[in-house]
Amino acid sequence: MQSCQSLAMEMESSASHQEIKRAGLLTRAWGCFKGLIGNLKNKVVNTAKSVKKLGEDDPRRITHSLKVGVAVTLVSLLYFSRTLYDSFGVAGMWAVLTVVVVFEFTVGGTLLKSLNRGFATLLAGALGVGAHHLASLFGNKGEPIVIGILVFLLASASTFSRFIPKIKARYDYGVLIFILTFSLVSVSGVRVDELVEVAHQRLSTIIIGGAACIVISIGICPVWAGEDLHKLVASNIEKLGNYLEGFGKEYFVEDGTEDEIKTKNKSFLEGYKSVLNSKSAEDSMANLALWEPRHGKFGFRHPWKQYLKIGAISRQCAYHIEALNGCINSNIQAPEEFKSKIQEPCKKMSEESGKALKLLSSAIKTMTDPSPAKIHVDNSKTAINELKIALKSCSLDHDDLLIIVPAATVASTLTEIVQCVDKLSESVHELANLAHFKIVEATVSPEKPQLLHRGTVNPVLDRGDDHVVITIEGTDSPENNHDDKNQATKMPSRQNLQV
Amino acid sequence: MQSCQSLAMEMESSASHQEIKRAGLLTRAWGCFKGLIGNLKNKVVNTAKSVKKLGEDDPRRITHSLKVGVAVTLVSLLYFSRTLYDSFGVAGMWAVLTVVVVFEFTVGGTLLKSLNRGFATLLAGALGVGAHHLASLFGNKGEPIVIGILVFLLASASTFSRFIPKIKARYDYGVLIFILTFSLVSVSGVRVDELVEVAHQRLSTIIIGGAACIVISIGICPVWAGEDLHKLVASNIEKLGNYLEGFGKEYFVEDGTEDEIKTKNKSFLEGYKSVLNSKSAEDSMANLALWEPRHGKFGFRHPWKQYLKIGAISRQCAYHIEALNGCINSNIQAPEEFKSKIQEPCKKMSEESGKALKLLSSAIKTMTDPSPAKIHVDNSKTAINELKIALKSCSLDHDDLLIIVPAATVASTLTEIVQCVDKLSESVHELANLAHFKIVEATVSPEKPQLLHRGTVNPVLDRGDDHVVITIEGTDSPENNHDDKNQATKMPSRQNLQV
Repeated sequence: MQSCQSLAMEMESSASHQEIKRAGLLTRAWGCFKGLIGNLKNKVVNTAKSVKKLGEDDPRRITHSLKVGVAVTLVSLLYFSRTLYDSFGVAGMWAVLTVVVVFEFTVGGTLLKSLNRGFATLLAGALGVGAHHLASLFGNKGEPIVIGILVFLLASASTFSRFIPKIKARYDYGVLIFILTFSLVSVSGVRVDELVEVAHQRLSTIIIGGAACIVISIGICPVWAGEDLHKLVASNIEKLGNYLEGFGKEYFVEDGTEDEIKTKNKSFLEGYKSVLNSKSAEDSMANLALWEPRHGKFGFRHPWKQYLKIGAISRQCAYHIEALNGCINSNIQAPEEFKSKIQEPCKKMSEESGKALKLLSSAIKTMTDPSPAKIHVDNSKTAINELKIALKSCSLDHDDLLIIVPAATVASTLTEIVQCVDKLSESVHELANLAHFKIVEATVSPEKPQLLHRGTVNPVLDRGDDHVVITIEGTDSPENNHDDKNQATKMPSRQNLQV
Repeated sequence: MQSCQSLAMEMESSASHQEIKRAGLLTRAWGCFKGLIGNLKNKVVNTAKSVKKLGEDDPRRITHSLKVGVAVTLVSLLYFSRTLYDSFGVAGMWAVLTVVVVFEFTVGGTLLKSLNRGFATLLAGALGVGAHHLASLFGNKGEPIVIGILVFLLASASTFSRFIPKIKARYDYGVLIFILTFSLVSVSGVRVDELVEVAHQRLSTIIIGGAACIVISIGICPVWAGEDLHKLVASNIEKLGNYLEGFGKEYFVEDGTEDEIKTKNKSFLEGYKSVLNSKSAEDSMANLALWEPRHGKFGFRHPWKQYLKIGAISRQCAYHIEALNGCINSNIQAPEEFKSKIQEPCKKMSEESGKALKLLSSAIKTMTDPSPAKIHVDNSKTAINELKIALKSCSLDHDDLLIIVPAATVASTLTEIVQCVDKLSESVHELANLAHFKIVEATVSPEKPQLLHRGTVNPVLDRGDDHVVITIEGTDSPENNHDDKNQATKMPSRQNLQV
């Protein structure tokens, strides 16, 4: 662009001077023009590619766009048709406005916005009529003052309420519509005499628009926020599992095969990074899921909050993996004896907890009993004890201490991860209990095996021989026990649904 | 509530039976009622407290609410006044609508939404008129079909464009208004004959509303997204610094003083947690900051993107601190000799990097030269070498290996943190250069001291005696060097502003 500008200036100044230069300038201008066209073409091609990718990544985006198109067209044509025009007048445009503003990607979002819009309009309309009546008592001169004061007070108070986190999350749009409708009704009420009729028209057109959105949103290829949350949480756990399964092979690599490793596809090692920043997406989906009706395998009172708990533990796990990831590109230079001794338990810890995570993820996905993951969690815990024994039996020279620190850190971080996976497994079991994933046989071990926590050391080793497992049906978390039994007797059909 | 329901049922069934019980029931009903009132009162009091806290935490929230109140009232009264009503008609309500929808907390948000609304209305209005003309060519029967097809195509395509991340971030609202205006104009255009006048009215009322918002938003106690981002990034770095400064004392505690520690206020150890999930807030602020005019110490082309880079490194650092935090509640049981040997360098690493972070934070806050932090970063790097020496000189029994793993992990994690702080310091220097924090004297060391990276070990120790520091004025990042000099000569007054 800069060269083009300077070219233009040059052209201006030289035009009257030398005829000879003109041909050259024209050639350059043509080159400049061709360059611009080429750039533009590249940009268009790139944009087209990225747009195509957007559609391929999630075809529901295309469906959603078509759904919005259908809804807007339908309501516009309703407005267009003479009959409706005659009964609704200009208010018909509120139906179009409602559809455009209210139609969200998920069913929950659409429902929440429709409800917000409907109730806020109703409430604000009623208050607006009241304000108008109140103001009219003060005579012609007092009226605008009273209305001004009322509008100011309500607008300020409502705007402030949008800072309250709970209202911000759920009723933000409703408060906006409340302020809008209240000021419009209380002000315009003075102008238009048929106030009640206007209010009635507006509300009924909003209901038409909202209903169109809800029907199309649910009726044609619905996108459920709850289902998305369910899948997101499961796939996040799977990503962590992929990493841990791959980590052992990646870190404890034989010296000879290093070059081979470098050319290998390491993309699975990057997957976990998206888990680190998943909080806001999960929070908003859980908020929308609360408003969705019973659908597919999800009941009306599905424990969406439990997903947030699982998500938080997943993130915790991802933070530890982030720490672990710092070690993956360094090769161990620890003495052969030390390396071979810790290698086995570390590999086992990482692989077994990876397997456990993948089983937990698939249990969530299929809504089946997550108990099969338990054995891998126990295996990874046993590996902690094996690591302890390996460390105890190591003989080292003084010089080695500095060298083994990195490997010791990997071992220690893996220990933290195993504990995290254990917590995750517990809360997935809780979810299975709350959401009635098939029949859950939870295992409660009264005496947990001693873990090697950073800093807490117990030289007496228990290799799991003395740890007793008592199986109690459906009593993973005592506080939900009573509730669960009640629900189980009330809804025997739920279990068939989920098989 | 449940007891109240059962009470009601009880009352019904027993009413006809025994007169004697009635008095008792009434007493219980009164108690029930009093309980409900008490609950309600508690809730109201709690809500009031949390609302008060919201206002106290950030008084700008109160100012903002009052500003919105003023803007809505002003525009409503304009609409109310007869003169304007006569010239604008019903279109006057678009001014109210614009104010309510467009007025955001930050100046950047308000500007972005106003511009979006204005341009989208203009473009969609023009296209709508065009569509209307095109459709009218097809006769009375063809008209609704052509309009329907056009609305469908534009609504679908625009909705899909909202999935493109760049458009989502900046023009989401504009696209919404585009769909809305296009369908309203192309459809209602058929009804209302004075189409161009309607478009003109609507646009001018939108401009009135938008202008009112922008003037009030900038004129009365403006809240700048850019300034907020600046402060957020600085305070996040400070939180990390607070943690690291406190960590040394917290972890390497003398045995005798443990009880004392337990009662101590440990709230500063929790501060860093908010840094973990700061990404979305930073992204949206940086996006809004781009639209804000020059204000205070921030020029028009302030390097807002650099803040995102600093934020990303801060989060990286926070992840390591999260790993470190797992160790804080465990006490070291390592042998006295080992403990005392690694204690000094570890304490130094943590304290010096904490000091460095706090200096970097205050340099950002005051927009002054961040070089003073450099010495602490260097000190913490030197401490890594001291740690290496300490580890080399340790003599251990075989049994100790298991016991020292947790302490070794702390040392290793602290090493990672020191490297993170070094990176952070570099990118704050880059920011200082780009944003002309006073005169920056960047120090470039051609030969960086060897760091103890996990896994990379160098037995030859260099204690910093041989590391040469060359000071070059204002040349931290070579690619910005030229640009900086240009800007410095153009704007000599900037430096006075920032002092």
